[in-house]
Amino acid sequence: MPLTQDQKTEIERQRAETQPTRRATVPALEEILYQPVPVLDHGFVRVIDYMGDDAAVVQAARVSYGKGTKRVSEDRGLIQYLMRHRHTTPFEMCEIKFHVKLPIFVARQWIRHRTANVNEYSARYSILDKEFYIPAPDQLAAQSVKNRQGRGDLLEGEEAARVLELLRRDAETAYASYAEMLNEDEAGAVTDGKRQGLARELARMNLTLNFYTQWYWKTDLYNLMNFLSLRADAHAQYEIRVYAEAMLGMLARWVPMTAEAFNQYRMGGAHLSEKGLDVVKRLIGGEAVTQADSGLSKREWAELMEALGREA
Amino acid sequence: MPLTQDQKTEIERQRAETQPTRRATVPALEEILYQPVPVLDHGFVRVIDYMGDDAAVVQAARVSYGKGTKRVSEDRGLIQYLMRHRHTTPFEMCEIKFHVKLPIFVARQWIRHRTANVNEYSARYSILDKEFYIPAPDQLAAQSVKNRQGRGDLLEGEEAARVLELLRRDAETAYASYAEMLNEDEAGAVTDGKRQGLARELARMNLTLNFYTQWYWKTDLYNLMNFLSLRADAHAQYEIRVYAEAMLGMLARWVPMTAEAFNQYRMGGAHLSEKGLDVVKRLIGGEAVTQADSGLSKREWAELMEALGREA
Amino acid sequence: MPLTQDQKTEIERQRAETQPTRRATVPALEEILYQPVPVLDHGFVRVIDYMGDDAAVVQAARVSYGKGTKRVSEDRGLIQYLMRHRHTTPFEMCEIKFHVKLPIFVARQWIRHRTANVNEYSARYSILDKEFYIPAPDQLAAQSVKNRQGRGDLLEGEEAARVLELLRRDAETAYASYAEMLNEDEAGAVTDGKRQGLARELARMNLTLNFYTQWYWKTDLYNLMNFLSLRADAHAQYEIRVYAEAMLGMLARWVPMTAEAFNQYRMGGAHLSEKGLDVVKRLIGGEAVTQADSGLSKREWAELMEALGREA
Amino acid sequence: MPLTQDQKTEIERQRAETQPTRRATVPALEEILYQPVPVLDHGFVRVIDYMGDDAAVVQAARVSYGKGTKRVSEDRGLIQYLMRHRHTTPFEMCEIKFHVKLPIFVARQWIRHRTANVNEYSARYSILDKEFYIPAPDQLAAQSVKNRQGRGDLLEGEEAARVLELLRRDAETAYASYAEMLNEDEAGAVTDGKRQGLARELARMNLTLNFYTQWYWKTDLYNLMNFLSLRADAHAQYEIRVYAEAMLGMLARWVPMTAEAFNQYRMGGAHLSEKGLDVVKRLIGGEAVTQADSGLSKREWAELMEALGREA
Repeated sequence: MPLTQDQKTEIERQRAETQPTRRATVPALEEILYQPVPVLDHGFVRVIDYMGDDAAVVQAARVSYGKGTKRVSEDRGLIQYLMRHRHTTPFEMCEIKFHVKLPIFVARQWIRHRTANVNEYSARYSILDKEFYIPAPDQLAAQSVKNRQGRGDLLEGEEAARVLELLRRDAETAYASYAEMLNEDEAGAVTDGKRQGLARELARMNLTLNFYTQWYWKTDLYNLMNFLSLRADAHAQYEIRVYAEAMLGMLARWVPMTAEAFNQYRMGGAHLSEKGLDVVKRLIGGEAVTQADSGLSKREWAELMEALGREA
Repeated sequence: MPLTQDQKTEIERQRAETQPTRRATVPALEEILYQPVPVLDHGFVRVIDYMGDDAAVVQAARVSYGKGTKRVSEDRGLIQYLMRHRHTTPFEMCEIKFHVKLPIFVARQWIRHRTANVNEYSARYSILDKEFYIPAPDQLAAQSVKNRQGRGDLLEGEEAARVLELLRRDAETAYASYAEMLNEDEAGAVTDGKRQGLARELARMNLTLNFYTQWYWKTDLYNLMNFLSLRADAHAQYEIRVYAEAMLGMLARWVPMTAEAFNQYRMGGAHLSEKGLDVVKRLIGGEAVTQADSGLSKREWAELMEALGREA
Repeated sequence: MPLTQDQKTEIERQRAETQPTRRATVPALEEILYQPVPVLDHGFVRVIDYMGDDAAVVQAARVSYGKGTKRVSEDRGLIQYLMRHRHTTPFEMCEIKFHVKLPIFVARQWIRHRTANVNEYSARYSILDKEFYIPAPDQLAAQSVKNRQGRGDLLEGEEAARVLELLRRDAETAYASYAEMLNEDEAGAVTDGKRQGLARELARMNLTLNFYTQWYWKTDLYNLMNFLSLRADAHAQYEIRVYAEAMLGMLARWVPMTAEAFNQYRMGGAHLSEKGLDVVKRLIGGEAVTQADSGLSKREWAELMEALGREA
Repeated sequence: MPLTQDQKTEIERQRAETQPTRRATVPALEEILYQPVPVLDHGFVRVIDYMGDDAAVVQAARVSYGKGTKRVSEDRGLIQYLMRHRHTTPFEMCEIKFHVKLPIFVARQWIRHRTANVNEYSARYSILDKEFYIPAPDQLAAQSVKNRQGRGDLLEGEEAARVLELLRRDAETAYASYAEMLNEDEAGAVTDGKRQGLARELARMNLTLNFYTQWYWKTDLYNLMNFLSLRADAHAQYEIRVYAEAMLGMLARWVPMTAEAFNQYRMGGAHLSEKGLDVVKRLIGGEAVTQADSGLSKREWAELMEALGREA
């Protein structure tokens, strides 16, 4: 369970308060503000704050004095035009802030997106909770045979059971040693008055990478879409993809027109290379093109056929 | 006058609307939201949107579930600690968006601050207004004799009058040619049915650098303070400093504790070099240090004496 | 002419010196190092320094101890894979530095690429040369009727002549006033001993936007390709596109494998939207799709037909 | 031992090759190019490539055609001026690339410096070596009593021995499970033909944070100095500080004038707040100021007295 009772109470207290504002406000996002959406076994993601809406994108594109909005259909058209033609700066004019609880190995992938602001819970000051990620049985995949960095078939039976046992056992052991070295319990009370306890900044190195950390993560709408297009993609590692998928729902609440254009032009669709486009033209012309005479490598050919919904 | 009647009406319309929000809200900043503060002869700066407040800095520093605030005195202490020790990331958790109207030569200095988002009015799409900056008589300074990049004494009499005449005449001429080449008036009506009119993306090159442009400029609190510490500094060029000074007032309304710490630790105070610190220690010890035996260059010595409020 | 005799001599002096290095070195780029390639009437771009080569991309992707290179064909395959799948970080491991002389209105577009390092010639310290851009007759285009930000037909006859006359006259006048206000000639000698001269930081505002400035501009290979894909594109303004085109040649000398992949996957090719991909599938299936039943707007339909080399 | 024999041979092979270049070259840095400097028990840092030198900083500041250098004394003076007055852009014109082997918990601090380029060894593709960090006995510190995030006295005797035993035991166990779950040995050979082996992207989560990773890290001279000023500081965690200290030596070889100015103005010296400066003025005036009448908090007072080399 990702939240304690105290935390839940604090969140409810915050949700109960409203204040008047002259700023652009999005009721559909206000509805879920501060509420954690559970992800994985102990994680969550929740929206803490936001700035701007679809109209703010339009307003910035026009550098207008007022709200920017003319008619809804014109705004939608402009947003689709901006998305199609890679006009990125108007989308940078909206900002969003998340609070995320996530395993450390996921955090290490996530942090590679540099155009964002981050404050992570510091295990130099505080003691981490005893919470670690154990994959659900339907995510316990073998190494892919085809793809050097992907997952293949599910592990089953004894092998699966053994993996879960090892993951759990090692995390438990690591945490027990962490607590012993610190000479403190989770509440911060000294365990053994005759010992000093290892510095927290050292002790944390004994934890395994599936322990949970948490952070505040803030980014603009353009960079959020970059993040989502990479991390909500089918090729992303499952454990980060589930966060991205939860955030796609938040995107749709926040800026529905932008989300629609994002799905249409970036998540959907495909990028064809010069040679790939050539193959498409020949196919449309009725030619029976094969990989051998396409000029494409086998891998590219397979990718193109997949995009076109054809047998490779 | 920086705004037309239509623009004023539009701004008033926006200011009249409020909506309830669960987000952090700052009444002192809401009070002036959307209102342009006049700067120079035709420019302005106004706050369009903001995210977060002093408590959001504290909340991020603690990665806390709730508002972050414990007691006001603790929050102030934490903010001062963060400022003093260059902990920059919590200040990045607040964001602000301005609409600015400014001369092009000021925009060229401003844009050098890269950690910000910008949408500028495009003179490829639209026709610029006939508005250019003419310095007030008390800003018509001669080249400094001491400082290769600064201003010296005021120009007076005939020389001053001649400068103002040239600036005005050349801007008027440039704009007249711009309009003639475009074959359009400011309202967009064709002037001469027999001509085609030069492309807007070409015609704009004829304008002088004191013409006004405008943009939306969004940045986080940390980078805003970097901007202000450089541009509100006494050594900044006057024409950008007046914008920075107007923004200092907005900072104080928005995040009063952070603004106080900023003034205390960054705008006030001084950075001493290793040798400068040495001189200070010797002075405290009662020694009569001179530039010659200080190890400092003449220029550094003068800067140090100025910081210490002593005669160089 | 973009360079003085002194500058040419200095460049030749630099080109004449070589030193041994253990670093990755690219002979084809060394060949043109420091040499300005002329662009527009007074501008140029030249490579001042570089770091890395194609093998450095491979080496970074593999985080290898040695040169990274296995066999040429494997390296090429890896580079194409990285380009196709948007793996950007290995391309960030190469860096290049240019010296560019360009009109101010071009500099204002260029500077919008923020992930780069810039040092611009400061007209606060120094006096700008009397050099301004006048379009060649074959670039003197009318405003496009279809495209609100583009160029249409060429201006001809009297209208063209008048435009050139105005551009030249206003630039000449602006520069004459600039010099008079400064009370200095280009060599820095005082013109009139009885006047003080306006501060350089003020006087420069009288110049028109077609005056030339210059800067050092440094970026990594990934961000260079972003710049080139936008600015060497047929839709970019001619006056920045010619710089980008000159730089494409430098890219090909520097990292030939990366340049090949860039042309194949980014400059060539096309991005299809979800609906666009759908149209393509129907066309391949032999259906006679029309704009009306495509689900695409007229503008998108036209763009898609153009990409497929079909009549809209 | 951080390197295998193969790796050493490869490095020696690279060091043996030189090529002529027209680029700025720094013999003192060439001397150690590619050579790993050992850090901690299994880590290292080595320079892989660099661009520019002290003269390149000067050249960029002057936007000059040639080498920038006039006389050595003038160059030194200009570099000191730039450093003192926070002119950051000329220092961005030099670039350096490192190959670093470091514990994961150190990598997590390091990566917070966002203005850099990184390629990390991917444990999704490859299997990590069995190498983990165990603090030397003289670094086995207790939690500080005064400083919530720092280290205090050394642990000794039984407590120290127990900590080392736990760290070693848990890392060994974690690695054994990692290898078992992967069903592969370090050489990549399958251990048990009847099992499939867990996907590498999952198995890595079982490793503890003291395991070593490695990356290519590239940054410009300005951002390198930001990194060093924070991480070579006495308050930085020891395990990252030792990397920064090794890099300080490389900085001195690479850009000796810049390194001198960096030590003088940034590493040495101190930043005084407005109130701190006030205290200094009163002390110089001969007043016997105490914390109570200084206007400073106890903590700030202590920090100021330390900077002035006085008893708090």
